[in-house]
Amino acid sequence: MNEDIKTTLKKHQKLIDQRLVIFFDEKERELKKVSDLAVKMCREIRDFTLRDGKRLRPILVYYGYLAGHGKNKKAILDASIFAELSHSYLLIHDDIIDRDKIRRGGPTMHKSYEQKYAKTAKNSEYLGISGAIMAGDLASAFAYEILTDSKFSPVLKEKAVKKMNQVLSDVICGETMDIFAGLNSGIKKGDILKILEYKTARYTIEGPLYIGAILAGAPENILKILSQFAIPLGIAFQLKDDILGMFGNMKVTGKSASSDIKEGKRTLLIVETLRLADKKQKKEIFKALGDPNATEKQLKNVREIIKNTGALDKISRKATEFAARASGIIEKSDLAKEIKQFLIGMSDYILEREK
Amino acid sequence: MNEDIKTTLKKHQKLIDQRLVIFFDEKERELKKVSDLAVKMCREIRDFTLRDGKRLRPILVYYGYLAGHGKNKKAILDASIFAELSHSYLLIHDDIIDRDKIRRGGPTMHKSYEQKYAKTAKNSEYLGISGAIMAGDLASAFAYEILTDSKFSPVLKEKAVKKMNQVLSDVICGETMDIFAGLNSGIKKGDILKILEYKTARYTIEGPLYIGAILAGAPENILKILSQFAIPLGIAFQLKDDILGMFGNMKVTGKSASSDIKEGKRTLLIVETLRLADKKQKKEIFKALGDPNATEKQLKNVREIIKNTGALDKISRKATEFAARASGIIEKSDLAKEIKQFLIGMSDYILEREK
Repeated sequence: MNEDIKTTLKKHQKLIDQRLVIFFDEKERELKKVSDLAVKMCREIRDFTLRDGKRLRPILVYYGYLAGHGKNKKAILDASIFAELSHSYLLIHDDIIDRDKIRRGGPTMHKSYEQKYAKTAKNSEYLGISGAIMAGDLASAFAYEILTDSKFSPVLKEKAVKKMNQVLSDVICGETMDIFAGLNSGIKKGDILKILEYKTARYTIEGPLYIGAILAGAPENILKILSQFAIPLGIAFQLKDDILGMFGNMKVTGKSASSDIKEGKRTLLIVETLRLADKKQKKEIFKALGDPNATEKQLKNVREIIKNTGALDKISRKATEFAARASGIIEKSDLAKEIKQFLIGMSDYILEREK
Repeated sequence: MNEDIKTTLKKHQKLIDQRLVIFFDEKERELKKVSDLAVKMCREIRDFTLRDGKRLRPILVYYGYLAGHGKNKKAILDASIFAELSHSYLLIHDDIIDRDKIRRGGPTMHKSYEQKYAKTAKNSEYLGISGAIMAGDLASAFAYEILTDSKFSPVLKEKAVKKMNQVLSDVICGETMDIFAGLNSGIKKGDILKILEYKTARYTIEGPLYIGAILAGAPENILKILSQFAIPLGIAFQLKDDILGMFGNMKVTGKSASSDIKEGKRTLLIVETLRLADKKQKKEIFKALGDPNATEKQLKNVREIIKNTGALDKISRKATEFAARASGIIEKSDLAKEIKQFLIGMSDYILEREK
């Protein structure tokens, strides 16, 4: 992978974290007037958000703005953190739904609230969920606030907020499909691809790039190129995520590599494995899939099957193909050279990342 | 109570419901392109929202607009339903937190989702919560969308969205206090008043009136009068709500009159009762308070104690005082005659309502 993109991302992550710290400091001062419990919740969101993350979405907002010929780098950097707050909002709620315990190397929000009350309240598990629902909602209000208060014209901000509404609606619908379509063991490949598009591609890649470009007042043709690039790259991102969710190193990814199986998630990787598996292999997979008490041995077995059937290779190749399709769009575009370099670098990064 | 206000409210409720139907019809058409599960969720939000409700918040948006000398009645009517959608958002999440089963005479959202999967899934309770978290989040995206897409200038809409962010942050902080301050049996009266202000007054009365006035481009002095009126009226509203939560007729209120006790809510009514109760009465209250299995006899007993200690009278008087303070602000203002009439009528309505 191009080392430049790694350096660029690292540098940018730092800048974003600095902005996040400024935002949360101010927010805490403001909420002190309301109540200690509000300040505490704000701190929970702060800790959750500032844990080691990729900051992919704010970085894409920033480069979307540059692609749209935006000139006010300070304003877009300040505004871009809205995407990290809305990400926290969705992750916090998502973790409740998936019953995940670990996120970015720390407890998920509902686990954090649960632990706080484990000794003093009988219903600490329920209090954990309640606290996390509210913390997610508060992070959502923060995200909208950052975007609405940013230093762009009301006309551009209106367009950006509209796109944000659309993106949130998309990702929520994607997540809803993920919850309820997964109940049907015969989930279709088309459904999974739709979930990939709505839950990841539109939300993680297309939305941020597009909103950045909107804030620059970018013309229609640039918005179109960014969308065409973003959707296949987003699908590649999710395929890679599914692979990391099964084979990733927890110390690097910050999340468990067994939860996808234990939750019984029907990722394209699993569906492809089931399609290629023989009777005996299928039986072994179904024994572990969706069983929260699946043993380490069982999990290891499932991983072996994913490799041996050739599903891992196939999905890796698919991810590469989608990323290449994305890069192709950029290569033949007439975007500025350094924007092209960054976006193509992102495609490489997304494929080769280890978290 | 002035019969005029009842007629005005009824007429207005119908207009709002018509707008809501148009919105949901369009939304369903739009979501059909995404997935059946998204359409189903939209229908759940539609059914939940269109159940017999007071539509208080959109009505206040409308009259806030008139108070601010707004002229485009069609545009404000269309825009005002954002407040009903954001109310659905918060109610859906609130009901999960309070473990309420009934809302507006039907199942709460998490119960509705739970029932759908009760026969086919082992974890239907958890699926119910998951579905309701997402349904609330989707309603929030709808609310922002309605306001952002409304037919007002970008400058006015920016101000309105800013206020909406603030109001949502306030109500979420109020709810957070309500969840976690309630754990401490020694909750202070000051905390309860703060919860009243943030969770109800700012959100139910002040926010909607203010946002309506903002969309009319109202001058600062009108915004100030509306705020001064709204906060005490909001407190009166919540005190009345607490009384209805204990003595209301479920067939009229659409929610159970025993859940406040069973959930162990520390309303001002309960805190006042505990202050005035003797040792024996206190013991009886504490036996029922927070016990989900409290019997009808126990509940009846608690209600008797609330009456006999004089707490009911005292809180009723307090509600009347706060409402009178609100009306006083309006009387001495120079708002137009029909606006005065409506707002003072609202104070009466809020005190005398039975749901």
